[in-house]
This record gives sequence, structure tokens and C-alpha cells, in this order.
Amino acid sequence: MPVGERIIRIDAFDKVTGQAKYTDDLCPANALVAKVLHSSIANGLVKRIDISKAEKLNGVVKVLTCFDVPNLPFATAGHPWSMDAERRDIADRLLLNKRVRYHGDDIAAVVALDEQTANKALQLTEVEYEEYPPLLTMQQALAEEAGDLHEGFNGNILAHTEYRHGNLKEVIRDPGLILVEGKHHTQSVQHCHMENPVSYAWEEGGRIVVVCATQIPHILRRIIAQALGLPWGKVRVIKPYIGGGFGNRQDALYEPLNAWLSLQVGGRCVRLELSREETFASTRCRHAMDFQIKSWFRPDGRIVARSLKVFSNQGAYASHGHAIVTNSIGAFRNMYQEEMAITEEATTVYTNLPVAGAMRGYGVPQIVFACEAHMDEAAAQLNIDPIELRRLNMMKDGYCDPTSGIQLHGDGLELSIARGKDWIKWDEKRRRYTGQTSNIRRGVGMALFTYKSGLFPKLWEGSNARLVLNQDGSLQIQVGATEIGQGSDTVFCQMAAQTLGFTIDRIHMISTQDTDTTPYDPGAYGSRQSYAVGGAVFQAAMKLKEEILFFAAKILYLPDDTLDIRDNMIVAKEDGRLLLSVEEVAMQALYHKEYCRHITAEVSHRTTSNAFSLGACFAEVEVDLELCKVKVLNIINVHDCGQVLNPALAEAQIHGGMSMSLGYALSEQMCFDKQGRLRNGNLLDYKLPTALDLPDFAVDFCGLPDPNAPYGNKSLGEPPALSPAPAIRNAIYHATGVALPALPLTPKTLFAEFKNAGLIQ
Amino acid sequence: MPVGERIIRIDAFDKVTGQAKYTDDLCPANALVAKVLHSSIANGLVKRIDISKAEKLNGVVKVLTCFDVPNLPFATAGHPWSMDAERRDIADRLLLNKRVRYHGDDIAAVVALDEQTANKALQLTEVEYEEYPPLLTMQQALAEEAGDLHEGFNGNILAHTEYRHGNLKEVIRDPGLILVEGKHHTQSVQHCHMENPVSYAWEEGGRIVVVCATQIPHILRRIIAQALGLPWGKVRVIKPYIGGGFGNRQDALYEPLNAWLSLQVGGRCVRLELSREETFASTRCRHAMDFQIKSWFRPDGRIVARSLKVFSNQGAYASHGHAIVTNSIGAFRNMYQEEMAITEEATTVYTNLPVAGAMRGYGVPQIVFACEAHMDEAAAQLNIDPIELRRLNMMKDGYCDPTSGIQLHGDGLELSIARGKDWIKWDEKRRRYTGQTSNIRRGVGMALFTYKSGLFPKLWEGSNARLVLNQDGSLQIQVGATEIGQGSDTVFCQMAAQTLGFTIDRIHMISTQDTDTTPYDPGAYGSRQSYAVGGAVFQAAMKLKEEILFFAAKILYLPDDTLDIRDNMIVAKEDGRLLLSVEEVAMQALYHKEYCRHITAEVSHRTTSNAFSLGACFAEVEVDLELCKVKVLNIINVHDCGQVLNPALAEAQIHGGMSMSLGYALSEQMCFDKQGRLRNGNLLDYKLPTALDLPDFAVDFCGLPDPNAPYGNKSLGEPPALSPAPAIRNAIYHATGVALPALPLTPKTLFAEFKNAGLIQ
Repeated sequence: MPVGERIIRIDAFDKVTGQAKYTDDLCPANALVAKVLHSSIANGLVKRIDISKAEKLNGVVKVLTCFDVPNLPFATAGHPWSMDAERRDIADRLLLNKRVRYHGDDIAAVVALDEQTANKALQLTEVEYEEYPPLLTMQQALAEEAGDLHEGFNGNILAHTEYRHGNLKEVIRDPGLILVEGKHHTQSVQHCHMENPVSYAWEEGGRIVVVCATQIPHILRRIIAQALGLPWGKVRVIKPYIGGGFGNRQDALYEPLNAWLSLQVGGRCVRLELSREETFASTRCRHAMDFQIKSWFRPDGRIVARSLKVFSNQGAYASHGHAIVTNSIGAFRNMYQEEMAITEEATTVYTNLPVAGAMRGYGVPQIVFACEAHMDEAAAQLNIDPIELRRLNMMKDGYCDPTSGIQLHGDGLELSIARGKDWIKWDEKRRRYTGQTSNIRRGVGMALFTYKSGLFPKLWEGSNARLVLNQDGSLQIQVGATEIGQGSDTVFCQMAAQTLGFTIDRIHMISTQDTDTTPYDPGAYGSRQSYAVGGAVFQAAMKLKEEILFFAAKILYLPDDTLDIRDNMIVAKEDGRLLLSVEEVAMQALYHKEYCRHITAEVSHRTTSNAFSLGACFAEVEVDLELCKVKVLNIINVHDCGQVLNPALAEAQIHGGMSMSLGYALSEQMCFDKQGRLRNGNLLDYKLPTALDLPDFAVDFCGLPDPNAPYGNKSLGEPPALSPAPAIRNAIYHATGVALPALPLTPKTLFAEFKNAGLIQ
Repeated sequence: MPVGERIIRIDAFDKVTGQAKYTDDLCPANALVAKVLHSSIANGLVKRIDISKAEKLNGVVKVLTCFDVPNLPFATAGHPWSMDAERRDIADRLLLNKRVRYHGDDIAAVVALDEQTANKALQLTEVEYEEYPPLLTMQQALAEEAGDLHEGFNGNILAHTEYRHGNLKEVIRDPGLILVEGKHHTQSVQHCHMENPVSYAWEEGGRIVVVCATQIPHILRRIIAQALGLPWGKVRVIKPYIGGGFGNRQDALYEPLNAWLSLQVGGRCVRLELSREETFASTRCRHAMDFQIKSWFRPDGRIVARSLKVFSNQGAYASHGHAIVTNSIGAFRNMYQEEMAITEEATTVYTNLPVAGAMRGYGVPQIVFACEAHMDEAAAQLNIDPIELRRLNMMKDGYCDPTSGIQLHGDGLELSIARGKDWIKWDEKRRRYTGQTSNIRRGVGMALFTYKSGLFPKLWEGSNARLVLNQDGSLQIQVGATEIGQGSDTVFCQMAAQTLGFTIDRIHMISTQDTDTTPYDPGAYGSRQSYAVGGAVFQAAMKLKEEILFFAAKILYLPDDTLDIRDNMIVAKEDGRLLLSVEEVAMQALYHKEYCRHITAEVSHRTTSNAFSLGACFAEVEVDLELCKVKVLNIINVHDCGQVLNPALAEAQIHGGMSMSLGYALSEQMCFDKQGRLRNGNLLDYKLPTALDLPDFAVDFCGLPDPNAPYGNKSLGEPPALSPAPAIRNAIYHATGVALPALPLTPKTLFAEFKNAGLIQ
């Protein structure tokens, strides 16, 4: 059966040999080059831009500034459009901005014959600002004396929401309860996908065509149209292979500006590629958050009440905004669900920092860090083994989230714990590493996570698939869902092969999305694709199979319900007798003069289920107190992701997620100076772990196929990146007794904390 | 109503401004360049090719010869595959040929980094031949001593067919009959499309992708696969805009070789573009034909019997082969159908000339010339006005072709005659120009034609269309049918707009075909597209409309059969009240969380009708006897093409066809030396008329909408090119009394004929 097999990803050969075409490989050689002038202040107003020198430069085609752009505020977040105006993303962007809100904001653009000329023209462009004090921290932005960064958002609060369940005040009156309090902080990090944002655009047939590296071609089409004030159908977006996304490309980045620039130079082809430095400063990053958690435990470890306060640093523009922290607090209340009373408060704050947006985990890596750190602190305070404390309180088979109705099937958390605990030799090492006094100390820690599979029922969750049968009995799959490196193209092929009874070599994938012909799909985010789009592929395959059997029945003079397909052959259902090849059916259906039928199938599918994906990370670390260095000795992620569609891809996905979480835990952070300028916006100074920095990653799977998904799978895109950071943090806590409150756990942080704890001088 | 309106073609702006992308515009800048080595003899065998010097040249990537290619003979004609092996085209080609059959045959190819190097490498390649006497005429090829050019085709006869109706021998015994005999000849000409054949190919995902200027992307995919021995689904063909086809691109030209060359260099992108000289000598041309017609008339002008013998010069390879002359003799028997007895014999002969293939009219320009020249000779012999003679014998309303069952509706021929006669002032000028004696003489002549609309019932006639609704209520049309300059994309938009009740600006056309995603269609040929594919567009539009109304009904809480669409609005059928915009329906259907439906429609359609397109050309010429020059003073084409879909495009189509027929009549011919080498294979020496050489073209339409076509139209692609040549020839006949037997009517020909007739010394 193709599903579950360790099939080599279908794009592996092309990607390894360099044969695969990415946006920049496809861009016409004679395209004009656009470059953006970014603001050199974090907060202020552009008073004047002198472009006279730049315009005179030989090779400059056009210089455009924030005084030229249409006054059409648009939202950039990659969400399906909502028919409910209340639920739409905040439209606080213009193509270029007079009101400058971060160091790196876009104020002008040059279109030139080549890159060198464009860069030179940027240097010749003179800007006069009116400068305001930068509001870099949430405290500064929330201070009474702070000016508003956006009209209509008083006090720089983008949104504030509260959630209450039960009567907390009542519950905590019980004098026998033990209160555990914690404050945690997570930092801002960048996605660091290999391919920097790049796009090119030109006018064709009175419409604007944009080729770009995006996770969300259909959504991006809408955003570009809104930003330019065009009917949506006048925009066409094409997405070739892309070099990673991780959520940064679940946003409109510079594609709307690129499209507009092309239209300003008569529809000529214009290419806009960001440098790595621009990618760091001027695209999106992960929200930094501040957490305050209080939990009230009974002495036996049962939680009876919790309160959570989160502040999320949005940076200069809304992007995905408050949806991120909303996802955080949702994950918080699901994970440990036995509490009787809960209050949650979440506040998203505009500041003069680069814009925070979607990033793998969408608010959950932050809350999992805070929550799981808090649980270990509670375990210590209660003197209960951290695993036992979790077991007591964690969500269990049959749990139903009251806000979404999503139900938990199976005991994946318990299974994950059991496997990880065993693998890491938890009991032995928890004992052995107690009471260490040397400079080098070891510890083991763990953390749990839960994550949903797609967006149902909270958000729109539709997907489409089209299958086109070739005359040789092979077929193409066309989906709007996007391959962004995660392997979705390969698993869709496996799914179609399985349902149709084809061998995998007969399935060809249309990897490129083209909004003109590709059926609508919102794209790659929310770990939705294999779960939600899998349903569309299943239905389309069933429909195509029905068509094939219809013609097979005509050719064979047999009732179609007696036929099936196995290994590309029409067989008798009863005894598996080989009757006819699918190729012969495809040929007859098409070329028989009485039929002339090209067999295709297209479905528009709505997903009406969701599933909790579950798992745990177990880590063993060695801490050098004097050097303040942490070495991860052993680490495992155990996942209940339902049916594993392709073990090779699943493991690779988990390796990638663990690597990302390790960087988050130990080294990555965006550092700003007092003017709000990013100090380490490049891959030398920003400490993204390389292969040499990483330990071997262990991976294990548990759990049963999900009952609602046609192929039994649950989400696995984002989950791997959730729990390693807190597991490592908790292992350090075990090794040193120091409850580190903030990420990343760099030597600098550790030095302060260890010193504070008296471990070092 | 969009159908029938004089709408500017949708690609006009892009084509005029140069914004439209053709194959070569899209080719990656770093593609390798392939060049073909053509044989320098017309008949023989390649004994040895020394590539050692070429291989050593810096920048040469690979040199391949006829000794390297797979031994997989393939057919090149652009016909849908037939499940009946007997009906398939003749597979007599290899990618490169050891057995050389014409001067210009393909014997080796070079792949290099650039064109200059590739050309130099060709010069360094040394070929040793075994040479045979060239068989350039059909007489030479049919002579007993001639060797066979292809195995299995004895005496170089590709095919010979006969058709008999009635008992001719019996009928012609009547002693009162008048026998009119004629021998006519038509020459070989070339299509001269603006864009030379060009393609580029590379390997991707284990498949070969070929981008090329072709009329038949889906068929070409099959031919490439067959030539390379690949499963058909392993080939992907993409067709951008093309600069004309006229039938030359209804054939596989160098695309199979291009695909193979790419695979020989590790799948790297390889570009193969022909020069104009290569296009003349080594692609396809129009079949030269020899006709012998005998007609037996009653004294009142009624034909009672006819016999026709045709020899068709195929050149070196089969291509479309005997299908062309079969079409000729079919048109012959339909045009004048009152005869009681007919015998037809058609023979297609292999020779050592360039390959004849499909060209606008597909054998009918040749027979219309011979037949209509013959009719004027008969009129003279019988002393009846040529028009009256035709009126007496021509096909009339209700006529049903016994071999195909195609029925004639309406009196389009009579209407065409009436309009043309009136316009040219026939009666007056026929009288006035009688008995001229000066050096400068004038005459009027005319000719009729009939032509079918598509291939039903003789050949496979299927077509598919897919419509994709955008959120703004606009839509894309996706068809496998190809825009080759004739304007089909525009009329498909008009058709969809009409059926859907949309305005034309809401319709976007996917002009590029991609065999991976574009529904199957054989492509542009046989004047089939607006007739046959129009049916698919109609059905798809009906299906889409049904879907739109389904959701409109849901939104409005009204029964869907009370609703209709007008000007992009949902209206009440009863009173036309505006209820809702289509945009709103598209938005609700897609974004309503309960629907999530992207509205699309795809149909697989089979055309089960055909229609005779009819018309006449009337010409007035001035002949300078001493200079042997002909000037066309006035010329009109009158067409019964059913409903005129777009008068502007229809007129342009007719202008183009008339221009082509004028060149055919007066100046164009391929001239060969005794070695079979083309002497005028370039646009300087080959006398294609330019705009300055052409008179003003008058155009008129008559006739009623066809009852079987959803939009009432009949064929108009090829018909305009059929009758001008014989009309001009008959006008010269009228002016001079010289019955010119052969095309083209160049001064050289006229000099010989006028001298022979004693008109000049």
C-alpha cells in the first residue's frame, strides 16, 4: 500500500541535482530589477524624499516613493477571506509608507536595468524624516506617554481578549491549594528559509502576473488585488518550487509592491529579490511574548485553577496579529484540561520593531515553553515527578475542547510519554543526576505538546483537487495546496495511488500552482494540508476511479460494481482476476469515436473534522557551569500523528522541527539596538544552528490512525517544533536546579542566571 | 450579445506591444543550443560521419548522428491516435536518418553552449554518402527503373484509392454528350508563418518537458513519446503564443529530436530553432498535384458523368500523406453533385523532394483550382455563362453527402453568387470585356468552394473545456484547442460570455496549453475549433451557469429555475429584476464556511455534426500581355459561414486567406534544381506577396446560422484560401482567352502560354 511506505520524495532527484526550477531560475534574463529603500529610523514621518539624483542615473527606469502609492490600506496575513468583516485581518499597510513604524520600513523603490544601478540609485535618494522616540518594548508602547503608532488603536493595543471558564475567584478560596507562579519570556526569531523572498511580475492580457515563492498563491492573489485596487481576477499568481517557508510566506511580503512597480513601468517584467539582511529586518518574525502563569494545585497534584496573562509583541504592522496569541491561549487550555476554573488574558501590542507574523507553531512554541517550564516548576514545588504531574492533568482519550468541539481520540500522550521515558531512561537518570556538585552536570527533561490538524471549525477549511488521467494510464494531481519542502506533493501522490489502486510511478504531481487554473486552496499553513487536502485528494480519486470503472465496464460488458483496480489493472472484485489495464481503459475512453472522453475528476471539498496531534520531547543535556554552555546529549521526539504517511518524510519533518526548536532554545534571537535597528540580521551573527551544532535526533511514532481522516493521518508540519525547547530547558533545570525563565538559553543568559543562583561567581 | 460583436481580439494589445510571450521569449537564457546537420544530397545513404573534429571544439557538449538514434519509426502527422491500426498515419521517420531521402534530410545534430559554436561544429562534421539518382518528379518515382524510397511501398506509391459512383461507362455511351477534358497542375508552396519552428526541452521529475510552437500540443505529446519510446504520460508539452501555423505545425517537426537531444545531455535545457532556410527545406509544404478531369455534359449544361485522376507529390516522408488527396477528391464530388456517375482515382507518390504535409485547405485549394478552371473551360466549350453552368450543377439546400451523411442547409452558394456577381458587376463586365484587342486587357472570373467544419464523422472529433470561476465573478477558460493567430481564444470568450450572461471583460482566456493540466483536445486543424470546440465551451458554460444559479438560489432562498444571469447579475427570469451579482455568488460559494465551493466546470464533449461552409470569390484582373503581368483590380470573397462570430476577426481571417491564395495564384512556388536542392528557400527569392503587392480585399457574408452548432457558426479557418486562385485564373481566361493550366501564374508561365496562343511573339 503506497500510504505508509518509505517512498523517496518525488522531487528529490530534481532538487538534489539542481534541475528543480525556483522562482529566480524562471525569471526572464531581461527583467528589470527593483530595490526597496528602507527607513533608517524606527518611528517617525517621511517629510520629503529627493529622488532627483537617482532619477538622473543612467539605467534607472523609475523611482517611486511613499508619496506615489495608492491610498489603499491592505492586510498581509495569509488567511482565507472572511465574509464577516469583523473577522478580517487588519488592513494597516500601504505599499510604501510615509508614516515610518520600524527601522527597515519601506519608503521608496527604484526600478532599474540592473541591480548595481538600482542599489546606487538607492544611495542617491535623500530622505528627510521627522523622528519620534522609538517604542521598542511593549512597556514603552503601552506607557501613557507613548504616541499611537496606528490610528484607531489606542494605546498601541492591537487587540486584547479574555477567556474565562468556571469561577476562578471562588475556586481558589480553598485554603488547601498550592499556588505556583511563573513568569516566562520568549524571544523574537526569524524563519531563515534558504530562499530569500523573490518575485517577478509583468502585465499580460491586461492582467498582472506575479511569479513568487509563496505558501499561499490563491490568498496572495487576493491581497495583491486589494493592495492595487484591482478586481481579484485581474491578478494571477504562479508559485514554483520554493526554498522553505515556515510561515514567513504565509503572508504577502513584497509581491504587492512588485506587482505595482511593474504596472508603473508599463507592465514590463520587474524582479524584486530581498537580500538576507532585508529578509531578517523587513519580512516577518516570531512574536516575542511575555507570560504570567498562575496555577492552583491540590496537594495530590491536581490543578483546580489557572490564570494566564500574555503580552505579544506585534512589531510595526498587524500581519497575523492577535490570531497568534489566540492560538497560544487555546493550546494552553487544551493541554491540561482537568482544571475547573481558568482565566486567560491576551494582549497584542504594536511596537517599533520588525513585524511579527506566522511562524511554524503559530504561537504554540511560545506557550508550550512557558507552560511546560511552569509544569516543571510546579512539579518541583509539589515534589512530584514532572511526568506524573503531567499524567495526572493532561488531556485524555475522549476529551472534547468546549470552544471548538474537537475531540481527542486515543491515548497518544500516554504512549508518547511511555516511549520517550523508556528511551531516555528517565527514572534512572532522574535519580542518578540528583545532587550533582561538579562543574559539568547532566539532567533530563521533557515536555508535552498538543496541536490541531488544520483550521476546522474555527476558520474556513476548504480544499480542492483535480486529477487528469493520461492516455498511458498515468495521471496528474493538481491541488492548490503548496509543496514548501515538507513533502506534501509526495504524500498526495501516495494517497491518490492508494485510493485508485495505482502504483506510485503512475502518479505525476503538478507542483506549480497557477491561480488561473489550479483549483482554489488557501495553501500551506496550520499543518492542514495532508489532513484537509488529503480529503480532497481522496474524494477526487474516488470520483476518477468511478469514471475509470464506468468505461472499463462498458469495454468488458460487465457491471461496474464487480470491478476494482489493483496495480494499474482492472480486476474482478470477486477473485482478483486481471481483466484489462487502466491504460487500455484510458485509451478506449478517449480514442473510441463514440466516447471521446478525457477522464478527469475535480472536487471541491470541505473538511468538517479536526484532530489533536500529540507528542512529547525528552532531552538529556550536559551543562558546563563555568562556560555556561549546554550540550544536548540525547533527544527524542515521540509523535502521535495518526497514520504515518511516509516514515522517511515524517522523520525528516521531525528532524527539521527539532532543529528549529533547538535553535530557538539555545542560540537564536533577533537583537536590536536602542534605535530599534536589528544588529544581527545576517546568517553570521544570527546563530542558526548548523548541522555540526546539532545532536543526532531520535524519532518515534505511536498512536492509532485518526478515525476521521481518509488516510488516518494527523498534523505533523508544525508539531515537531513545539516541545524540544522546553524539554531542554527542563533538563537544564534538572541538571542545575535553576529555573530559567526566558529563551534563548545562551551563555550570556546562563551566566546571569547561574550567578544569580550562586552556582558560579 | 457578445457573439456576433466586433470585439477587439483579446490578445491584440499584447501582440502589438510585444508584451505577448512566444516560445523563444520564454526560453531560459542558459539553455544549450542544438543545430541539425542536413543532408547535402537528395537520395542516398550515409555511410560514415566523422564527428571527431566537431567533438573537440570548445563549447560543444555533444554530437549525435543517425547512427545513435533509437530504431523507433514514428509518424509525424497531427491526427488523434486511432485505436484501429489500419487508420494510423504511416510511421516512416526516425529522429535522424541514415537513409537520406531529400536534400535537407536530418542526419546529425550538435548540442553546444551557443549557436555560433553549434554552427561551427556542423561545418566540422564530415559525411560520406552513397548517392542514388534523385527521383524529383512523380514520373521519375513511378518509373519502373526507380528504386523504392521506403520499404513496403513498392513503386514509391504511398497509397492509391479509387471511388466510383454510378456506372460511368454506361452513362457516357449517350452520343449526345459533350466531353470536356482538362489537365491541371498545382505547385508546391510553403506556409511562411512568421515564427520559425522553435522549441526547447528539459527533463523534470523524470519526465521530458517540451515548450514549442505547435498547433497540436496533446497530439505532439503522443508523437514525442512514440519517437522516444516513452510512456505518453512521461512527456509534457507546453504551447505558448505562436506566430502562425497554417498546418505546418499540425505535424511533429523537430520537437521529438529536441526532446531526445535534451535526454542525451542529462536532461539539460536544450533549444532548437530553425532558420528560415531550414523551415523552407526541412519542415512541410503544400502537395503539388496533377489533375486530369473529364466531364460529360448534356447540351443544356447538366453534368452526367465525371472522372478525376489525381497524382499527389508527397516528397520524402509520409506526414499527412494520402489524407490530403483524399480530401481533394471528396471536395470534388461534393461541389457539383448532380452528376449521375463518377470515378475518382488518387495516387500519392513518394519522391526525393521536401515533405508535403498539411497546409490551409488540406488538398482543397488544389482541387478547387483544377475543378473551377475546368468549369470555366466547359462553360466556354458549351457557350454558357460560367455562373449559370455552376448554378445548374452545384450542391443545393438539402444535399446530403452519401459518404459522410453531412447535409447542406440553406442556399449559401446561390446567395454568395448573387452578392459577388452584383458587387463585381458581372454581367456588364463579362459583356464589356469581350473582344478586347489591346495589349492591356481586363477580365472577370469567379470560383466557388465548399468546405466542411471539422472532422465528424470521418475522424475522431472530441473536445474538452474547463471553466474556472474567480472570486470577483470573472472566469478563466481552459481549452486544449489552440490559438494560432486565427482568433479562436477571442471567440471562445465571446461564446462563454454569451451563454453565461457575462460581459466579455469578465472572461479571461488561458491561451497557453499545457498537456499536464489542459483538457485533451487535438488542436487547431480542419477548421474545426470554433465549430467543434465551441460545443465544449457551450456545454461547460451551461454547467457553470447551473452551479452559479444553484448557489444563487441558496443565497436568495428562491428556486434556481426562476433565476437567470444577465450582464454579470443574477436576475429574476420573470421580470429581469436585479437580485445579486455573480461576484457575490462566487464569494459566498467559496468563502461561506458551510460551502467552501470553488465553482468550476469541465466537460468532455463529442461533436456529432458537421456543416458545409460555402462561398465564392469574384475577381477582376488587368493583364499586360507584353509584360506578362497580372494586376488584380477588384476581388471579393463572399462566405456563408453561418453565424459570423466576430465580424472583425472574420474579415481578418478572410483577408489572410485571400492573401495566401493570391500568392498561390500569382507568385509563390518552391523551385528545385536537378539535384533536388531548393533554390529559393528564403523570403527574398520565394515570392510571398507583401502588403504592397496586394489589392484591397472585399469581404461579404451571407447565409443563415447553422442549425446544429450552438452558436450557429460554420468553418472559416481554411475556406478563405480556397477560391481566389481559380477566380483570378478564370478572370485571366476571360481577359485573354488563354486557359492557363498550371499555378503559379508568373510572367514566365504567362509568356510561354501567351506565345503558344499567338497573343505575343
